[in-house]
Amino acid sequence: MPTTQAFGTTSATAPVASLTIERRDPRPHDVQIEILYCGICHSDLHTARGEWPGTVYPCVPGHEIVGRITAVGDHVKKFKVGDIAGVGCLVDSCRECDNCKEGLEQFCSQGGTFTYNSADKISGGHTFGGYSKSIVVPEDFALHISDKLPLDAVAPLLCAGITTYSPLRHWKVGKGTRVGVLGLGGLGHMGVKLAVAMGAEVTMLSHSPSKEQDAKRLGAHRFVLTSDAEQVKTVSGYFDFILDTVSAEHDYNFYLGLLRVNGVMVCVGVPPQPITVPALNLIFGRKSVAGSLIGGLPETQEMLDFCAEHNIVSDIELIKPDQINEAYERMLKGDVRYRFVIDFKSE
Amino acid sequence: MPTTQAFGTTSATAPVASLTIERRDPRPHDVQIEILYCGICHSDLHTARGEWPGTVYPCVPGHEIVGRITAVGDHVKKFKVGDIAGVGCLVDSCRECDNCKEGLEQFCSQGGTFTYNSADKISGGHTFGGYSKSIVVPEDFALHISDKLPLDAVAPLLCAGITTYSPLRHWKVGKGTRVGVLGLGGLGHMGVKLAVAMGAEVTMLSHSPSKEQDAKRLGAHRFVLTSDAEQVKTVSGYFDFILDTVSAEHDYNFYLGLLRVNGVMVCVGVPPQPITVPALNLIFGRKSVAGSLIGGLPETQEMLDFCAEHNIVSDIELIKPDQINEAYERMLKGDVRYRFVIDFKSE
Repeated sequence: MPTTQAFGTTSATAPVASLTIERRDPRPHDVQIEILYCGICHSDLHTARGEWPGTVYPCVPGHEIVGRITAVGDHVKKFKVGDIAGVGCLVDSCRECDNCKEGLEQFCSQGGTFTYNSADKISGGHTFGGYSKSIVVPEDFALHISDKLPLDAVAPLLCAGITTYSPLRHWKVGKGTRVGVLGLGGLGHMGVKLAVAMGAEVTMLSHSPSKEQDAKRLGAHRFVLTSDAEQVKTVSGYFDFILDTVSAEHDYNFYLGLLRVNGVMVCVGVPPQPITVPALNLIFGRKSVAGSLIGGLPETQEMLDFCAEHNIVSDIELIKPDQINEAYERMLKGDVRYRFVIDFKSE
Repeated sequence: MPTTQAFGTTSATAPVASLTIERRDPRPHDVQIEILYCGICHSDLHTARGEWPGTVYPCVPGHEIVGRITAVGDHVKKFKVGDIAGVGCLVDSCRECDNCKEGLEQFCSQGGTFTYNSADKISGGHTFGGYSKSIVVPEDFALHISDKLPLDAVAPLLCAGITTYSPLRHWKVGKGTRVGVLGLGGLGHMGVKLAVAMGAEVTMLSHSPSKEQDAKRLGAHRFVLTSDAEQVKTVSGYFDFILDTVSAEHDYNFYLGLLRVNGVMVCVGVPPQPITVPALNLIFGRKSVAGSLIGGLPETQEMLDFCAEHNIVSDIELIKPDQINEAYERMLKGDVRYRFVIDFKSE
């Protein structure tokens, strides 16, 4: 198979470094993409460093990919050479199960093929992600990207964007919905922008006073400092929907108390500790705690189109491939507003 | 104030015994009801014995009340003397807050007045429930009861019926919905009957093989013995909706695994231990854990009408007031199929 340059880790303790990986030649329904930009998601770091079970090395992370089509298979209909395309967290699925047929490929009952560190059912071995110069995917797993938006800042929409867009849509957030966004990071800042664009009344919930100015700049109508009991009192029983993007330990009961009757709290962050809530905290007020995982291909395209229409991209800091290790360290300190994006054009 | 005979406890350790309590004369919008039957809910036992915080003595439990109107206030429009009426878990609420206006009086933001052991904003003191010969309530908190159904077996609909009906309706259970009912007791047996009548495909989930025959008699299409791994495998990722009526400790994660994508598990039982679920168990499959509390007045009437239309009542064992203590002991052993109802006519 042809090879390409990539950036990844060879063990849990190795730094991200240049590697050579194989990429198949495009099959009849595949597209080959020259990667221009790839966002850095916190999952990349967890996987590269073996912090989650199951990392297979060498590990090439990256699932927020924007690039240009450089070759197409004979039967490809949706893309032509030169088109700009995106790839998110999925590069394949069975396409036959009920979930795939409903466009919920992220819940493929055969197990979808994730963009990296997933068994590669086509080429064998495991998948390599977007920290690389090129990628080959089935055209059905490539997404159209509007040329109206800056491509580097589009990249994080492929994971952070769809992860927050999908639950907002699924739970019908819209005009008049009182939305609380918990946590202002890569996911949270997209949650604020998207919920505002959907017409919701958006409150940023944060324990960090330093986030207030930025939250409002991003469009939040209100900021509540969760360590200030007086401020918290003003939103007791207030929200229809809380988007919880926090991956650190936190008390879900505190936030359930901010939901009104029929309120829903949706978790997209994965803390190491389980959610622990007395049943009565759900029973009084008919409240729900739910989870949401990225989004299927049709909804990811819908999200990209929505962002193009509403001029929404991620707030990013552009880096070169040799800065990935440094970026990881800064992410661990929360020192990024709000997403690093690797610029492969600069190589 | 006039007095009436009641049955209740004078302390956490006292048996249920005959007491004399006061009942106000009907005000212009009140109805006075001669109580014919009152179901025994597990909450009665917890409250009477001070097992939940906040019991005020003397404690007269009972919130599954069916009786006959014996007097009406001058402005009462909905009832006349001689009508059969029901009273459930609520006897008053503010009627002005958003929740009351939406018919969700159980979530009254001022705090609704529960039928027993609640501050009585009208007469002072605390409310006394249906273990008594009569009760006086605002007409808006009395319910019409069809004469098509046996009145003794209707009584448990006022709590067990609405507690299971409301979540089935709220989450739109209907034709084709795959419903699992967890626990076959006072609540569970109503859950089965109601979900079947709504057109759902209903599976009883129980760890007790002895429940199979009864579950099917009640209408369940299927019985899954949750201690049998082979049987459980057949319903992995299967249900759209699980109605969890269990009040004993149990592992919510086990049941989340039986939900399909977008599945919802609704808790109406209150175990002493909190619900403990890793966020990933909700995230994979976009699943929800929710709670539900009885139902508002309009929905309780809707449920009673639905039961009349579908000929649904509770399976009961009729007892006399002097058998309440014995009934409590038998309830603790699970020795009732499925609800004790006190017959006050027999006195």
